[in-house]
Amino acid sequence: MDRVSAIGTAVRAQRDRVAALFDDLARCGRTDPGFTRASYSPEETEAHAVAARCAADLGLAIHRDAAANTTMTLPGRDGSLPPILIGSHLDTVAHGGNFDGAAGVVASLAAVAALRAMGLTPERDIVVMGIRAEESVWFQVSYIGSRAALGTLPDGALDAARIDSGLSLAAHIARAGGDPDALRSGPPARDAAAIHAFLEVHIEQAPSLEEAGIPVGLCTGIPGNIRYPDVRIVGRHDHVGTPRRFRHDAAMAGAEIALALDRVWAEREAEGCPMAVTFGRFHTDAAVHGLTTVPGAFRFSLDMRAYAPDVLAALEAAFLAAVAEVTERRGVTVALGSRAEAGIGAVCPRIRDGLAAAATALGIPTRPLGSPASHDAAAFAKAGVPMAMLFVRNANGSHNPDEDMAIDDLLDAVAILTAWLVAETCPA
Amino acid sequence: MDRVSAIGTAVRAQRDRVAALFDDLARCGRTDPGFTRASYSPEETEAHAVAARCAADLGLAIHRDAAANTTMTLPGRDGSLPPILIGSHLDTVAHGGNFDGAAGVVASLAAVAALRAMGLTPERDIVVMGIRAEESVWFQVSYIGSRAALGTLPDGALDAARIDSGLSLAAHIARAGGDPDALRSGPPARDAAAIHAFLEVHIEQAPSLEEAGIPVGLCTGIPGNIRYPDVRIVGRHDHVGTPRRFRHDAAMAGAEIALALDRVWAEREAEGCPMAVTFGRFHTDAAVHGLTTVPGAFRFSLDMRAYAPDVLAALEAAFLAAVAEVTERRGVTVALGSRAEAGIGAVCPRIRDGLAAAATALGIPTRPLGSPASHDAAAFAKAGVPMAMLFVRNANGSHNPDEDMAIDDLLDAVAILTAWLVAETCPA
Repeated sequence: MDRVSAIGTAVRAQRDRVAALFDDLARCGRTDPGFTRASYSPEETEAHAVAARCAADLGLAIHRDAAANTTMTLPGRDGSLPPILIGSHLDTVAHGGNFDGAAGVVASLAAVAALRAMGLTPERDIVVMGIRAEESVWFQVSYIGSRAALGTLPDGALDAARIDSGLSLAAHIARAGGDPDALRSGPPARDAAAIHAFLEVHIEQAPSLEEAGIPVGLCTGIPGNIRYPDVRIVGRHDHVGTPRRFRHDAAMAGAEIALALDRVWAEREAEGCPMAVTFGRFHTDAAVHGLTTVPGAFRFSLDMRAYAPDVLAALEAAFLAAVAEVTERRGVTVALGSRAEAGIGAVCPRIRDGLAAAATALGIPTRPLGSPASHDAAAFAKAGVPMAMLFVRNANGSHNPDEDMAIDDLLDAVAILTAWLVAETCPA
Repeated sequence: MDRVSAIGTAVRAQRDRVAALFDDLARCGRTDPGFTRASYSPEETEAHAVAARCAADLGLAIHRDAAANTTMTLPGRDGSLPPILIGSHLDTVAHGGNFDGAAGVVASLAAVAALRAMGLTPERDIVVMGIRAEESVWFQVSYIGSRAALGTLPDGALDAARIDSGLSLAAHIARAGGDPDALRSGPPARDAAAIHAFLEVHIEQAPSLEEAGIPVGLCTGIPGNIRYPDVRIVGRHDHVGTPRRFRHDAAMAGAEIALALDRVWAEREAEGCPMAVTFGRFHTDAAVHGLTTVPGAFRFSLDMRAYAPDVLAALEAAFLAAVAEVTERRGVTVALGSRAEAGIGAVCPRIRDGLAAAATALGIPTRPLGSPASHDAAAFAKAGVPMAMLFVRNANGSHNPDEDMAIDDLLDAVAILTAWLVAETCPA
């Protein structure tokens, strides 16, 4: 049996382990509907324990860093060489699915299990990472776990309050067994210059692969984003019969701002320029709104993302222009609130070519795919670590209870990852 | 001193009584900000007690009908003649002001006090009505108190649940000392054919009079309305990075429907056709929405109002067309939910001319004014009772804590009302 066939066989043999891992994860934070494993919640910690138990079975060295990330290391022949990191996050949005994030940790454990089963020892350490707090909805901060590990968290991030508990990120890290003081003053857990590569497997967040009938996508890049998590429009609450000329309707102002940006998106997309614009929270004030009151208050969150800095800057300019125009015309005021941004994540061409070659050798169909979403991999790329990603077909989008991923498709991605690891670290 | 001067003097002498009444009312349901006297709440009942105490001081006969409306009667010379009813409601929206509704009850008590002070006995009973539950936000049913008195409540209205307590209208009426069984099976408190006229003083809900520098408006008509209190759009919750072609964004669908109707309003208004369109509640689902999730659910309330049936019908047709178009294009579904309507309320030309003549005699500037809002008076008009209304200048709109009304302006309306009552019932 040639090496490629052996890899395929070793990966397929991990099917039961993979299924059992998803079953165990499905007991962490089950809510109705879907799963809620908030960043640094007990439910997220349970998911880390599930991964660690599997890693212990595989004989990996398990460690928890100051950010409470779980690292599970397959030792290489030369521990002084920069390691390869593979993994993803284990938290979810509220009422999300069981696969967004977790599938990447499961895939990484399966790849290492396949290496073990083949009796291969890599020349350098391979570290499976169970990363904390990627879903920025909880603290309104991106890539918390991976940036904490790299020492690249922005100033003040540890003081951010989680939206449900109101407690600080530092307090939550401490509760989850981490060490926020070490994050504030100590050296980072990882020196980016001493990481050979970071690879992440993730379900696709859109049905592009489903549409194309292809199980695995090769990431061509991760979009940067600009976010305004809490924009507040103040108009005036008025009687339902108030004539048009006297109104300062905050909700109609919000609708106009949103649709102005939606039109920009539609136009640019038609020109072939990919991006995304999302008003995830978009609402009148539940404490005072009513059938017979003109809304005097409206709030929304905004996430804009694109693959090129100039496209992102143009989107933000269009947003601010819409705010200015609507503010003036509707007689409302707009408080933009805080602003956050995440850089564009470039994929390492050498690794991507290697993954493509592995897929071809394995006979697994792939296609290039710009990631619509942000990922921990972007934090590594920004820190200078060579990065690549594999996407797994998923018919129903993510961040919802209906995330759908076939284990066979995940195993295709595992096979490609494993073949690349073998080629990179186990020269024949 | 001629009769008109005597009326002016008698009304001005009620200033302290009026101010004291508003002070007493301001202790009923004070919330921060504003006032919350929910329909059939203890706070609304306290406001009725304030009015009743004043009426008792004036020697009026006080009665509570089966709907717990308070009637305060100045007996006329011939109790067999159909009475004149004057008054308004005493409930408020959540965090509303102290004047919307209550000012009309205070004005009516002041008018009767002025008649008393002048030593006049009308030829027929004059009944001051403290009406229950006009603010339809609480039970999503219009004109509850006045229609209960007239026996014109729609089927099922007594089973409607109040939005905050969840208890039925019948249960709330019983708690407030009314008799829901009598409302279900007994004759109505008032036979519309045996009411001589209904007059209502109310603050203007817009600053039209403020803009014109005029203290009192003569109502030319009350708009009818069509309402959809709880429209629900279902799309699909998706990851923030989902490409445009895969999205089913319920919030953007809601924004498009709202702005489509807003454009119709702007266009017709420019053609001189008055109407109003209000999306009072307009929101994503607080249980699941988030910065990084495409909204899969959106809800709104809609109130459309106009002075002509064809205009109202055209508005509704435009709404339904927008729903159909957006549903198709955005790939969402829309559940319209319940629908309610209230007829257009015509003002009695004879009474209106009489009020105008009284204002002229008193030297009080007035102007004709279409009511932008619905009022109890519309329920009387619909039942066939000759109806008229006076609006009092108010700079800040209503249904908000900043309702602003000068007592001198209210006294101008009281003087007009009193002069009309004198002319109608106390022939010299």
